[in-house]
Amino acid sequence: MPKNSPTRRFDLDSLALDAGARDPLHLQLRDQIRRAILEGRLRPGERVPSTRGLAGSLGIGRNTVASAYDQLTSEGYLAAAVGSGTRVSRTLPERLLNAPKAGPAPAPGVGGADGLSRLSARGREIAAFGRLLGLDRGRPAPFRPHIPALDAFPREVWERLTARRQKRLPRDLFARVDSLGYRPLREAVAGYLGASRGVRCTADDIVITAGVQQGIDLIARLLIDPGDKVWLEEPGYLDVRPAFEMAGAEVISVPLDADGLDVSAAERSQPRPRLAYVSPSCQWPTGITMPLARRLELLSWADRSGAWVLEDDYAGEFRYGGRPLPALQGLDRSGRVIYTGTFSKVLFPSLRLGYLVAPPGLAEAFGAARWLADRHSPPLEQAVLADFIDGGHFARHIRQMRTLYAERQGAVVDSAHAELSGAVDIPAAEAGMHLVARAVGASQEAIMAAASGVGVEYHPISRYSAATPPAPGLILGYAAYPPESSRRAMQAWARALGGTRIGHATPAAALPPAPRPGEIIT
Amino acid sequence: MPKNSPTRRFDLDSLALDAGARDPLHLQLRDQIRRAILEGRLRPGERVPSTRGLAGSLGIGRNTVASAYDQLTSEGYLAAAVGSGTRVSRTLPERLLNAPKAGPAPAPGVGGADGLSRLSARGREIAAFGRLLGLDRGRPAPFRPHIPALDAFPREVWERLTARRQKRLPRDLFARVDSLGYRPLREAVAGYLGASRGVRCTADDIVITAGVQQGIDLIARLLIDPGDKVWLEEPGYLDVRPAFEMAGAEVISVPLDADGLDVSAAERSQPRPRLAYVSPSCQWPTGITMPLARRLELLSWADRSGAWVLEDDYAGEFRYGGRPLPALQGLDRSGRVIYTGTFSKVLFPSLRLGYLVAPPGLAEAFGAARWLADRHSPPLEQAVLADFIDGGHFARHIRQMRTLYAERQGAVVDSAHAELSGAVDIPAAEAGMHLVARAVGASQEAIMAAASGVGVEYHPISRYSAATPPAPGLILGYAAYPPESSRRAMQAWARALGGTRIGHATPAAALPPAPRPGEIIT
Repeated sequence: MPKNSPTRRFDLDSLALDAGARDPLHLQLRDQIRRAILEGRLRPGERVPSTRGLAGSLGIGRNTVASAYDQLTSEGYLAAAVGSGTRVSRTLPERLLNAPKAGPAPAPGVGGADGLSRLSARGREIAAFGRLLGLDRGRPAPFRPHIPALDAFPREVWERLTARRQKRLPRDLFARVDSLGYRPLREAVAGYLGASRGVRCTADDIVITAGVQQGIDLIARLLIDPGDKVWLEEPGYLDVRPAFEMAGAEVISVPLDADGLDVSAAERSQPRPRLAYVSPSCQWPTGITMPLARRLELLSWADRSGAWVLEDDYAGEFRYGGRPLPALQGLDRSGRVIYTGTFSKVLFPSLRLGYLVAPPGLAEAFGAARWLADRHSPPLEQAVLADFIDGGHFARHIRQMRTLYAERQGAVVDSAHAELSGAVDIPAAEAGMHLVARAVGASQEAIMAAASGVGVEYHPISRYSAATPPAPGLILGYAAYPPESSRRAMQAWARALGGTRIGHATPAAALPPAPRPGEIIT
Repeated sequence: MPKNSPTRRFDLDSLALDAGARDPLHLQLRDQIRRAILEGRLRPGERVPSTRGLAGSLGIGRNTVASAYDQLTSEGYLAAAVGSGTRVSRTLPERLLNAPKAGPAPAPGVGGADGLSRLSARGREIAAFGRLLGLDRGRPAPFRPHIPALDAFPREVWERLTARRQKRLPRDLFARVDSLGYRPLREAVAGYLGASRGVRCTADDIVITAGVQQGIDLIARLLIDPGDKVWLEEPGYLDVRPAFEMAGAEVISVPLDADGLDVSAAERSQPRPRLAYVSPSCQWPTGITMPLARRLELLSWADRSGAWVLEDDYAGEFRYGGRPLPALQGLDRSGRVIYTGTFSKVLFPSLRLGYLVAPPGLAEAFGAARWLADRHSPPLEQAVLADFIDGGHFARHIRQMRTLYAERQGAVVDSAHAELSGAVDIPAAEAGMHLVARAVGASQEAIMAAASGVGVEYHPISRYSAATPPAPGLILGYAAYPPESSRRAMQAWARALGGTRIGHATPAAALPPAPRPGEIIT
């Protein structure tokens, strides 16, 4: 415990040493004297106490003080002069020795309201996008989209595989991993995509990514030059826009018709793009499945125009009826399609593993792009996922989820029909993990306000629309929510809306927890 | 087992069903018929066998064939006509039904030598960079740099923490994780940086990254606009160049003097940059530690000019003598410094976890940039690392490595002196994990050729130099290699060089394994 008493001009009150702290005493002393110098409490040329004197004042060993002084001297803060003891160095610039100035530059550690103004123009756009993302923080409630059935994931299997793998992959776990991905996982993914999605590939074509978002980022790095045009469906998955814009592309919204991206209209009216982004299995957010004829038309156009087609098959695993169709990639005869998908929407969201199928001859280039972005995906998760697929758990989980999601979708559609049929129309979807609600007997604003009032979550389609006015509709995710919780949410929503068919109203307090703004799941 | 016999024009020889395969028989049949159509072996309008007939020919159940036909019909490949059986659809475009054309577009799955020509201009640069990276594949041999002592990592501790954590973090493991990082890890990193590196920050300022490379990528996204200038040390860590160029920056090489980046010379002769990248603890690759006066000069310049300073403290943990100095970030009074570091160089390379300290008010913007890049780092590894730090294992490991690396560096310096003193000069380094060798009595080319001939690895400094002619010297990593293996490598190198002081030569066969080109550690 330090004894605090003034010694000459040196303010010992500012020194507080703690023998129980993580840092040894000499480091604590060094840091505190350094701070006193930097904050101007010790001035250039000023004498500091002798090591013996300070040790006595503080009740610590003289060697401790000497060690701190030695280090401060070697760092240039203190200077020892023969015959006149130790002083604060005179060569420290005056500027540094004053307290932080008032003015536009905020002090470190102090959040400045003007912080964002210091970003680049692109950085300000990213930060603005971040505020939108903040809406999805907190524990999800019905019907926040993009979330699989966490309650139905076979966690005990995953944990068993993890426990086994983390002890059995010494080289993988500790040495450098291939940027293209862990080889057995690439093989497992190639086998799965070939058998289940009609994708033509071998393990050599597979690039393991941290998910579709990163896959698109890598594609933009490798295939887009500044000034290139990129077609994006309207409405569409606008989250990919910043990746293309980062690469200097101009992103052009291309309208849909009932079959998805309207190729011939776009070809007539829009500038020729370097790349067209499509989600043919289940268009985000409309849910349209692109029929075979349109797929062939799109491929024919890509072949003629020399454009790339980026096929985002983010939820191709989940189809409940209608026409199962092979991936565009499997129909492609000219190597123009880049196929990408993710495991985080099928297994669990914090698993940041996805894949892309590189066009012929380009896998190594994708490996280089990944190396420059962030090196590689975590080896343990890659190995566990490979085991999960090879052990048949992945195929079984998809089968089970297909049944479960059909049931969960049915519960939402049925309870919407029972509770909200005068106000909202929610047709069944033949694929994916979400439904689209459209206002029929009330304004969309009133419907949204009612939902927000009782903690019912949704994404407005306008969030994915660049058109003026934006496309109408609300996106309702259903995969994560058991039927009973969906029904209760729908009842509360109807009650808040004062709808026509309110049966057995539920107090809002019985709902799943609403998101707390700013709350982060950790 | 299928019996293969021709039925009308339908080539049953092309069908090979395997009852033991992962896919059920009806899916195998569907895929093979689809392929026959796409490859032109079945023509539009052509009749296919009846379900009964094909089932009999193949020795499988009629329901299996019917199921395959149903799906192909729903996909549009087959059409059932009343009274005339089932035919291949006539509406499939002719183009699709031919075999892949000869010509510039390679067929999927076939690597085209012209693949790279289809990349963007930027993509071709990335691919070229990737070929350089390929040189470091395979098991590392002395003296490949950038690798810590894998043999001395406390793996049993890490595995124990992983085993415990993977069962005890249910919400973290399965729900969405904060893009800024797992909160307890952010707190542990803030505590460590404050106590050991003189960094002024709280957990709110910490952004967990996938390593320094990704940190720089995020910084480029947020702080750089097209046309901005970026200063990079010459020679310097050129690997960061593509990240800045991706953001549209012009990267300018700025010369060093004995104290590191020559601020006043650069200020006089170079265009004013938006950001200056420096590695003041241990300049890569020269090893220079920037003294306090130069640090203050750099900060003063940044304050005056409004530029950002990116401080890469990639190996600040390892200092063996000389002047320990606080981070630039801790000296900064105007919030111009972004501090970044990594755990992969301190613990093990496949652990893709690092950190940056965001300038005041900007952490949330970094979170948004990370979300758009790849969402977040893996939660399990983040939690294990937090436990590793909080349990004191991290501090202990660093202490032990400081001793071990000093010893390993000494072994390299000593054996170079004993074996190669007539040809190569390798002065001791006061920080980091590498040494710089300079040719003295032989040409650098001869020295490099001798090393390559016996599987001794190095990075030429020219790899990190944009000057003409490039800076001379060879980078030798030592941290990963026990003294005996370093000594043997040095002896083999000397023998290959035919040097003047070859003592006890070692046959190359006794060396650690040399890298096999293209080999990937998986």
